[in-house]
Amino acid sequence: MKARVYVTIKPSVLDPQGQTICSALNGLGHKEIVSVRQGKYFEIAIADDASRESAVKDLEEIARDVLSNPVIEDYRVEIVD
Amino acid sequence: MKARVYVTIKPSVLDPQGQTICSALNGLGHKEIVSVRQGKYFEIAIADDASRESAVKDLEEIARDVLSNPVIEDYRVEIVD
Repeated sequence: MKARVYVTIKPSVLDPQGQTICSALNGLGHKEIVSVRQGKYFEIAIADDASRESAVKDLEEIARDVLSNPVIEDYRVEIVD
Repeated sequence: MKARVYVTIKPSVLDPQGQTICSALNGLGHKEIVSVRQGKYFEIAIADDASRESAVKDLEEIARDVLSNPVIEDYRVEIVD
């Protein structure tokens, strides 16, 4: 089974890295870019003998406790197959 | 218009950061996790007066030239709305 976890900075939290990328793109001539926010992305492979329910439960826990900081970040878990 | 760009390390390239996360998860008791690969994720807002075609063309260029290193990374561009 494969899963994807997306971790993004909450909309209310400043993202200086994204702002820098945005300014750089504008400076390179891409004037149509209004904002950029950078996040993290994880591709996770899960053993095939794990049940889907336990995998979903585990991934939620992993995304919340290990991969993200819930104070400033949001996460989204997606099971691929 | 909004777009998302995903940048992942090519399958043939080692990802020590992902391997470390995988070992840490196994150590924390998540034994069913087989592998983890970390990537980058960008949420990009584009000015509403830009045409869809020019936005797609520009985003391809941005993803290839600025956001990723095509030698070791793959990218995927997704237009959201």
